[in-house]
Amino acid sequence: MGKAAERRKELAEELLRVGEKTIRRKGLAGLKARDLAREAGCALGAIYNVFPDLDNLILTINTRTLAAFQQHLAEAGLNEAPESSQSIEANIDRIVRLAAAYVDFAAANQQRWRALFEHRMGGLRKIPKWYIEAQKPLFALVEKPLRELEPGLGDQELALRARNIFAAIHGVVDLGLNQKLADMPVAVLRAQVSEIARALAGGLLSTRRGEKPSAPR
Amino acid sequence: MGKAAERRKELAEELLRVGEKTIRRKGLAGLKARDLAREAGCALGAIYNVFPDLDNLILTINTRTLAAFQQHLAEAGLNEAPESSQSIEANIDRIVRLAAAYVDFAAANQQRWRALFEHRMGGLRKIPKWYIEAQKPLFALVEKPLRELEPGLGDQELALRARNIFAAIHGVVDLGLNQKLADMPVAVLRAQVSEIARALAGGLLSTRRGEKPSAPR
Repeated sequence: MGKAAERRKELAEELLRVGEKTIRRKGLAGLKARDLAREAGCALGAIYNVFPDLDNLILTINTRTLAAFQQHLAEAGLNEAPESSQSIEANIDRIVRLAAAYVDFAAANQQRWRALFEHRMGGLRKIPKWYIEAQKPLFALVEKPLRELEPGLGDQELALRARNIFAAIHGVVDLGLNQKLADMPVAVLRAQVSEIARALAGGLLSTRRGEKPSAPR
Repeated sequence: MGKAAERRKELAEELLRVGEKTIRRKGLAGLKARDLAREAGCALGAIYNVFPDLDNLILTINTRTLAAFQQHLAEAGLNEAPESSQSIEANIDRIVRLAAAYVDFAAANQQRWRALFEHRMGGLRKIPKWYIEAQKPLFALVEKPLRELEPGLGDQELALRARNIFAAIHGVVDLGLNQKLADMPVAVLRAQVSEIARALAGGLLSTRRGEKPSAPR
């Protein structure tokens, strides 16, 4: 790598570091190109020598958050007795643990976590493919127990179901941490989210099988 | 009402009308006091003669959205055969219909609906009581079938469960319409949300009763 390329790389890294720090402190809405440049000690225009635009910089920070998020969830899904890993309950438990871990990560990293969802592409640009790819390992964690629960599901159906479970849990965590709907301490939220995840995973399985909650005949 | 009071009332109404129009067109982020004043034909400071602050103005617009939302959901919950209203399936169906109606309202009124969730109080101010009260009829729609499904739930538990179901559905609709997680037409989203709502309502009932999805023994 030439000297110029090395300097570009260093500046990119510094901008990402400063950008992430800003998001942690002030949230995504507090991230301004002018402040970034000042804190990283470069000219405003220099940002655009190393990133095509601010969206690209933010999405790069977000992929790091996604990786940390994914690692946190993966660890939560792992601590289990392997001999029971094939049973229905073990797989529902895995989904419940993932949901509880979702609460913990979101509560501990609120601003970075919110930035994942608050970011909108400028203009009419589409979310780039590499960013969509970066989300996949997160969903794969939910897809794995779902696949064991319902081996008959096609890949598309499985992906959609995993995303919907993710989104439902996200909704409960989002509004819970937002405290817009109710004033909720994290431990209570974790219990609530676990209950929702268990009901959802079990309920989807029952619905799929055509079972109905014991209705009066 | 004196003439001055009447003028204040007219200005307040005009600001609400212009504010709502702006939210519809540009979203909450596009609402600026300066533009509002210009469009309503008043001085910037005049806004604060009729509203204590911009938050109050926005929340007043939001209560109108909440009322429209609530009416839309209430109508969806009503069209059913009354003789079956007591059965478990009828009440689960009611929750599913509410969820499907949620999709339709959100899709047809995206910006106004988003404003309900995007708004944050300025400074460290708390959400006023009257706004929290204005949300309650919406949750009451979910509480009603839940109460019939689980007569043993206490009021607090019932309220929490209704809010969690609301939040879970919100999450699926939010990320679905956002198209951040998947590219989803409204009809597909409605079907997905209905499935999630049915699974959740049925699953919560089963969990509560200590039933488990038929596990291998």
